[in-house]
Amino acid sequence: MSTVCPPQNAESDPRVKAVFDDIRATRKVDTLNNLWHYLAATPGLLEEVWADVKTVMATESALDSKTKEMLYIAVSVANSCSYCVHSHTAAARARGMTNDEYEDLLRVVTLAARTNHLVTGLQVPVDAMFDQDQSS
Amino acid sequence: MSTVCPPQNAESDPRVKAVFDDIRATRKVDTLNNLWHYLAATPGLLEEVWADVKTVMATESALDSKTKEMLYIAVSVANSCSYCVHSHTAAARARGMTNDEYEDLLRVVTLAARTNHLVTGLQVPVDAMFDQDQSS
Amino acid sequence: MSTVCPPQNAESDPRVKAVFDDIRATRKVDTLNNLWHYLAATPGLLEEVWADVKTVMATESALDSKTKEMLYIAVSVANSCSYCVHSHTAAARARGMTNDEYEDLLRVVTLAARTNHLVTGLQVPVDAMFDQDQSS
Amino acid sequence: MSTVCPPQNAESDPRVKAVFDDIRATRKVDTLNNLWHYLAATPGLLEEVWADVKTVMATESALDSKTKEMLYIAVSVANSCSYCVHSHTAAARARGMTNDEYEDLLRVVTLAARTNHLVTGLQVPVDAMFDQDQSS
Amino acid sequence: MSTVCPPQNAESDPRVKAVFDDIRATRKVDTLNNLWHYLAATPGLLEEVWADVKTVMATESALDSKTKEMLYIAVSVANSCSYCVHSHTAAARARGMTNDEYEDLLRVVTLAARTNHLVTGLQVPVDAMFDQDQSS
Amino acid sequence: MSTVCPPQNAESDPRVKAVFDDIRATRKVDTLNNLWHYLAATPGLLEEVWADVKTVMATESALDSKTKEMLYIAVSVANSCSYCVHSHTAAARARGMTNDEYEDLLRVVTLAARTNHLVTGLQVPVDAMFDQDQSS
Repeated sequence: MSTVCPPQNAESDPRVKAVFDDIRATRKVDTLNNLWHYLAATPGLLEEVWADVKTVMATESALDSKTKEMLYIAVSVANSCSYCVHSHTAAARARGMTNDEYEDLLRVVTLAARTNHLVTGLQVPVDAMFDQDQSS
Repeated sequence: MSTVCPPQNAESDPRVKAVFDDIRATRKVDTLNNLWHYLAATPGLLEEVWADVKTVMATESALDSKTKEMLYIAVSVANSCSYCVHSHTAAARARGMTNDEYEDLLRVVTLAARTNHLVTGLQVPVDAMFDQDQSS
Repeated sequence: MSTVCPPQNAESDPRVKAVFDDIRATRKVDTLNNLWHYLAATPGLLEEVWADVKTVMATESALDSKTKEMLYIAVSVANSCSYCVHSHTAAARARGMTNDEYEDLLRVVTLAARTNHLVTGLQVPVDAMFDQDQSS
Repeated sequence: MSTVCPPQNAESDPRVKAVFDDIRATRKVDTLNNLWHYLAATPGLLEEVWADVKTVMATESALDSKTKEMLYIAVSVANSCSYCVHSHTAAARARGMTNDEYEDLLRVVTLAARTNHLVTGLQVPVDAMFDQDQSS
Repeated sequence: MSTVCPPQNAESDPRVKAVFDDIRATRKVDTLNNLWHYLAATPGLLEEVWADVKTVMATESALDSKTKEMLYIAVSVANSCSYCVHSHTAAARARGMTNDEYEDLLRVVTLAARTNHLVTGLQVPVDAMFDQDQSS
Repeated sequence: MSTVCPPQNAESDPRVKAVFDDIRATRKVDTLNNLWHYLAATPGLLEEVWADVKTVMATESALDSKTKEMLYIAVSVANSCSYCVHSHTAAARARGMTNDEYEDLLRVVTLAARTNHLVTGLQVPVDAMFDQDQSS
């Protein structure tokens, strides 16, 4: 059940085909997960989202792929995005996240949630020592 | 401005002193950040929260300290906890997070937020291939 | 699956019937969506919620109906309310939202989510020039 | 710093004065908290919000006033509304919430946040036994 | 559909069996809800979560059990945790929450959500009179 | 107070200067709001964020500028981003949002928050008629 209908024969649109080909090549997979099929209804948005995902997640950068996928899980849990929790937990595992690391991630995410709510409940003022901003 | 008043001479309460001593020893610091001073008004809660934080964040585990602090930032951003964003960004830096890694973290967190909202807007159904659960 | 059971023969209760009749007349529809059937278990709450929805969404006001439904989608996405995303996307379409407008809405909503998380991560201080409040 | 400017001499508008008088009489206070002063810029909205707050919070109902204020705190913490956390913690105390009850509230709110994030991380399927809905 | 697979014969692990036995004894139930079956895949986390839940929810404290379950519902709604909304609504009913109390809870939770968003939209400054903190 | 320190003489970096020049030209302003000064510490991220903002918000598209800024406010309120609420309320006013339209926006945003929480509390199942997806 979705708010949009994924187009049939989506790859008959050359813009969609180009993105789908690039996803398959970049990720070395044969089948694409649902997000891309549903985005095919809006080729412009498909191109933009894939460009962003490719730049941030599929390009070498300061953090390794596994860590980036774990950060993605953490945000997706806090934002209650069921689909993203599923897809990025699978992706983190595919990039080497072990069961022990996953258990550790759940510990940190749930502890953070606990203290986030505690601090917001108490309205603790921010310590001056945390301020990096010399200009203000 | 807070919903509670941190007690003066908090360490005259031996339960508070024991926790404060343990935080100083574990973290190798002389001064405690505000959260602990404000929690001192409720010694039972102070003990429980510190026990949790010590177990999850200050004990060797599958993930290294820096990664755990970065996950903490990610959740705190998504939960809009200003204090926690400040304190855990400082903690991640103290555990070696570089400027490049921080920039990368911001990229991942903000991309995740973007696709979390996209997928929730589209209500994309979860792919069967993401299901780990053989029992259902 | 719900936390309440929608009553059978809900319209045998005159308070429920009066609200259902008014929804059908106001919206020019024959069937009501699930929210109203489930609220029929609590007639007082049903009356209050419908009164609010009618006042805000079904009454002429400064913003046109389509814009109001699009704002409703935006909030519902950010609050992760699957039901509301579905119902208000359908309502926005019924009030004339085109595919291009929907694509544009998704762009704005997801960009906002991205910069919301960025600014919260950076804890950027609010510019004085944004302040409307001459009294403080 | 606010997005609106509270009007000076707000009570020269009879609609504002009527609401302000009713708040003072209902709450038995001489001064109003900021929310009402800022809402005075939009008298229609002021009337609607006060009518809602009076009906739900200041009218006898199944739950006592203290419990209702505590529920209000819980939601406001989870929604990261600093102002509401402050105002409803003060209101709960004014209605008799003890320090022990407040500590207990913080325990429940933070535990709930923890397991909310845990369950969302694990994507645990809802048990059939929780379903109240015989119609589906 | 879940991100983990609940172990078959989970109770062949003595750590899991000890927790499951304690849950059954504490709650006086024969069958456990899904959360515990899924947590059995990570016995250390299972022990920690149950210890927390038992301490906060199943131990006599300043607030009665019904009120604690209602606060749990409030947080779970605001955090959009479908599973937790279901399980804690069932728990609150089991501890005596009446239909009128549930209707009242829904009124307070939804009013709080409304004013949380209103105050955040207006960015109303916190009144000095709400400050409990004499130290700052 | 921020987690980063905005660089002094930021425009001595040609990448920063190029972006700042483009913002000033696109928006026809002399001074930039804080977000851009703080992002100048990470020129790559500055370029990416401005490119996104320019594409979505400063380019002609299906929705007019005022409507897009109002959607931005709605998301920012729901995500509790104080800075974004301030900056986009100012932007919406600069693009012609009247006081009546702003009042209407607040009504819709707060009603949506209310029913989001109501529907999540009740766990109302999505109506089949809302499904656009013929493929599932």
